[in-house]
Amino acid sequence: MRNLLLTLRFIGTEYCGFQFQNNGLSVAEVFSRAAESVLGERPQIKGCSRTDAGVHALGYALSLKTNSSIPAERLPIALNTRLPQDVAVTSCREVGDDFHARYCAKSKQYIYKILNTGIKDPFYEGLALRHPKALDENQLNAQALDYIGAHDFSAFCNAGGNVSDKVRNIYKCSVAREGDIVLFSVTGDGFLYNMVRIMVGTLLDISSGKIAKGSIKDIIASRDRERAGITAPAHGLYLARVDYTGLD
Amino acid sequence: MRNLLLTLRFIGTEYCGFQFQNNGLSVAEVFSRAAESVLGERPQIKGCSRTDAGVHALGYALSLKTNSSIPAERLPIALNTRLPQDVAVTSCREVGDDFHARYCAKSKQYIYKILNTGIKDPFYEGLALRHPKALDENQLNAQALDYIGAHDFSAFCNAGGNVSDKVRNIYKCSVAREGDIVLFSVTGDGFLYNMVRIMVGTLLDISSGKIAKGSIKDIIASRDRERAGITAPAHGLYLARVDYTGLD
Repeated sequence: MRNLLLTLRFIGTEYCGFQFQNNGLSVAEVFSRAAESVLGERPQIKGCSRTDAGVHALGYALSLKTNSSIPAERLPIALNTRLPQDVAVTSCREVGDDFHARYCAKSKQYIYKILNTGIKDPFYEGLALRHPKALDENQLNAQALDYIGAHDFSAFCNAGGNVSDKVRNIYKCSVAREGDIVLFSVTGDGFLYNMVRIMVGTLLDISSGKIAKGSIKDIIASRDRERAGITAPAHGLYLARVDYTGLD
Repeated sequence: MRNLLLTLRFIGTEYCGFQFQNNGLSVAEVFSRAAESVLGERPQIKGCSRTDAGVHALGYALSLKTNSSIPAERLPIALNTRLPQDVAVTSCREVGDDFHARYCAKSKQYIYKILNTGIKDPFYEGLALRHPKALDENQLNAQALDYIGAHDFSAFCNAGGNVSDKVRNIYKCSVAREGDIVLFSVTGDGFLYNMVRIMVGTLLDISSGKIAKGSIKDIIASRDRERAGITAPAHGLYLARVDYTGLD
């Protein structure tokens, strides 16, 4: 049986997340239907992570076991003809039998888009959080540096996750502006339930003065969810990329 | 009665164009419904141009006569709460009684977005023409310069327009690349039916070798629609901005 690593790009608005669920349409479900019709069998798929309902992806990774002999380089276009408009496969390669898109991930990058304008923009509806008050990206970038490092992020985890070890290592974290878009970017070895959205919400609460500047280190140390900021809405969040050890 | 100039941004995918039509939902119709509920009366509106079905706008201009006393600066947000997700009012100002969004236009700028990748991108579906073969934006930019000037553009006009004077003055025309997007931009005093789409289609036919390099001047001089290229699809086209004499 072959094991393949695929990269997906999707607009998450219409989905309950990547993972199969009984109460909604998942990206995994529409992907599996397309894969079944192309491969002639329903494949076993392993996603790199659950994603919340409404979250988007620029580079979601999944591994898939199949008996099909269709060459890897032909699969993206074949699958894309069967996928709905809001989901695309952007790459596909062979990987070893032991490869698992979730357990072999070395790091993940998420971005969060904030449209910093007072007026609605149809081209960003559902694709960025609109925030009318002017944001100071330099100040927020300075604050965001305090997320970097290996910390117990219990204060940045909502109830509903089921992991006991809440230490995560954040390698990079920054805030930058591209025109009206303020872009939060974070790369780490893993993320707790709603962690990125709470990291962004905390920065927004610092911007509004609800949380004091310079207090991110204290909030982390407190391990107290009550001290961190709001959970920013899902529709600004994008899983940007997943990196694996031993793959170039 | 007050006369107001409004700027609209819209995703044209779901509309039959700006102009009211019997056989489809127009942007004018959804705008008028929203305006009626905000202003308490159905306003008289004058659009800056018809747009084809599926064409988008970053800065569509319309003028509107109303007896309402709601301040101009408050109207965008009030109207946006009543407009669907894919249409927004981005500005509003008072103008003189004689102002007409179509007849007073000094120039219009259109852009056309080409996604130059072999693979589908959900974030550009319906928002750019996907063209898998590599485009040489520098070569196309050199070709596009030949559109500049006052010419009879009969060769770049499909049947269905009803104007007799087919001379239009093109002030600026360029092709540039921003990552995977090849951007055609054209500014002129006016455009014939499907003119921008045929200008783009001709460049694509030059790129593929179907039309010889350096022949745009001859095609214009021929006034023969058969000699120009294909009509590029509507979904890559955006009315970017309209400028008026005497307004800053």
